[in-house]
Amino acid sequence: MSKIKTVAVVGGTHGNEFSGIYLLRKWQQPTAVVRDSFSIETVFANPKAHDDNKRYVDHDLNRQFSLIDLANNDLASYEQSRAKVINQQIGPKGDARVDFIIDLHNTTSNMGPCLILLQSDSFNRQMGAYVKMQMPDAVVVFEDHTPVEQNHFLSSIAPQGVIVEVGPQPQSVIRQDILDWMDEMTTHILDFVHLHNTNELIPLIPSYEAFRYHETLSLPEDEQGQRIGMVHRSVQDNDFKPLRNGDLIFTLFDGTEVHWQGDYEAYPHFINEAAYYDNNLAMSLAKKIVMETKG
Amino acid sequence: MSKIKTVAVVGGTHGNEFSGIYLLRKWQQPTAVVRDSFSIETVFANPKAHDDNKRYVDHDLNRQFSLIDLANNDLASYEQSRAKVINQQIGPKGDARVDFIIDLHNTTSNMGPCLILLQSDSFNRQMGAYVKMQMPDAVVVFEDHTPVEQNHFLSSIAPQGVIVEVGPQPQSVIRQDILDWMDEMTTHILDFVHLHNTNELIPLIPSYEAFRYHETLSLPEDEQGQRIGMVHRSVQDNDFKPLRNGDLIFTLFDGTEVHWQGDYEAYPHFINEAAYYDNNLAMSLAKKIVMETKG
Repeated sequence: MSKIKTVAVVGGTHGNEFSGIYLLRKWQQPTAVVRDSFSIETVFANPKAHDDNKRYVDHDLNRQFSLIDLANNDLASYEQSRAKVINQQIGPKGDARVDFIIDLHNTTSNMGPCLILLQSDSFNRQMGAYVKMQMPDAVVVFEDHTPVEQNHFLSSIAPQGVIVEVGPQPQSVIRQDILDWMDEMTTHILDFVHLHNTNELIPLIPSYEAFRYHETLSLPEDEQGQRIGMVHRSVQDNDFKPLRNGDLIFTLFDGTEVHWQGDYEAYPHFINEAAYYDNNLAMSLAKKIVMETKG
Repeated sequence: MSKIKTVAVVGGTHGNEFSGIYLLRKWQQPTAVVRDSFSIETVFANPKAHDDNKRYVDHDLNRQFSLIDLANNDLASYEQSRAKVINQQIGPKGDARVDFIIDLHNTTSNMGPCLILLQSDSFNRQMGAYVKMQMPDAVVVFEDHTPVEQNHFLSSIAPQGVIVEVGPQPQSVIRQDILDWMDEMTTHILDFVHLHNTNELIPLIPSYEAFRYHETLSLPEDEQGQRIGMVHRSVQDNDFKPLRNGDLIFTLFDGTEVHWQGDYEAYPHFINEAAYYDNNLAMSLAKKIVMETKG
């Protein structure tokens, strides 16, 4: 990995995830965040959705950044337009002006301070190790199943990008504990970039516990597509706790309890995330891994 | 208090408070809730806001039920119109067909299962005692500072009405623990009405701990009305825990901590409720009281 010269810190990609928006305001003060070895710019990604106090106006902004969609001028809704503007501003994807993107998100799920890495190259592995060393309660999740070019996240505009995902926080609320976690994790990431640039990285742990995204579970539906159940109370809030074959997972509104049928030890996260109801999703499942820092 | 002949159970007064909406669906099944001594009907108050996954479309529905507003035909937004229709359906206020209303709400605040009583007559005092006996963790709050005629809540249409307020639950989410609490509390209230009607009330505790609404605190603002701070992390989630003069209450975004200046022992609730950001409200404060069951 060559040096990182320019970093974009993005908040408000979802308009009702408040921590990133308030963190940007704080960081827009001169001298709030300065590192000698690279420049930092802030991007308030979806101001209209924030004004409307919603996740998005027309479409989820954080699903509009595949190369094929960015090139399709028929995609012209508010967020599809914002995506093209942001791609001009800090991209363009494939030949981006910005080297590294930190996209700040909240979840209603009990995920704590969570670093989502979209690649498992040496740079990302080392970043995960560094963040775990500085912030032992942080959770590192690899969502590296999609090549960057096909990835539709905002953070895929640059060659390197991560998502800082912190919860639990209700939509449209700002909690100090969550804001402090986001501030701390983002600061560690910027410190890591600086140490990477200056070849001053401290000796890193050789490996660490992490999670790798595996699959997504839907909420129970009937044959007409009506939702007929909810996340079981024994799973609620137990993000990153093991789920094994036969464990309770859903309660139907008629009282029936549903057991998970799976052939591996799963680690649910994004459990009962409010924004995922649009697509009737109940949670994501990961596998626990030991990530080698040098890979 | 004469007998209660007709009860309306209302859900979805706020479209993104899901528990009441799902509880109504369950209770619309025949025989789900039947009591011999009175009839029960269900009202889905704000279906359009629920379709839009918002608290309200134009105005907060639960502020539209003062007699003067109900009589004002110039108030014609969606919720102002819904209020008049609901008033026709189960009212009219002042001469209502329905004797008692249970209005089901959620909060993002950590209030647990909370029964909000709008009057402190014998009927309400006894109901509070009965619910506390059946559900010791329940919290009873008297918001009896406004006469029913002037009250703008939906539950003020009938001579008697209460609010079941259960949290914490993010907007637009259904949590099983919260749904179960709402189901249980509402069932106890219906049981109480039946025992009241049939003169079979069990001996009640002579008095119980309750709270009485006192005042509302705003979030910190600058002179231009811009929000400049948030609820302090030491207050967050501590609904119904004492707050004393000098205790930390807010953190400004510049890091300054703000102490509460008050001359009484306050009990915050609705702490950092998402829906109250519209009006820049931080929390309500109550005083703790001992309520005599016979008053």
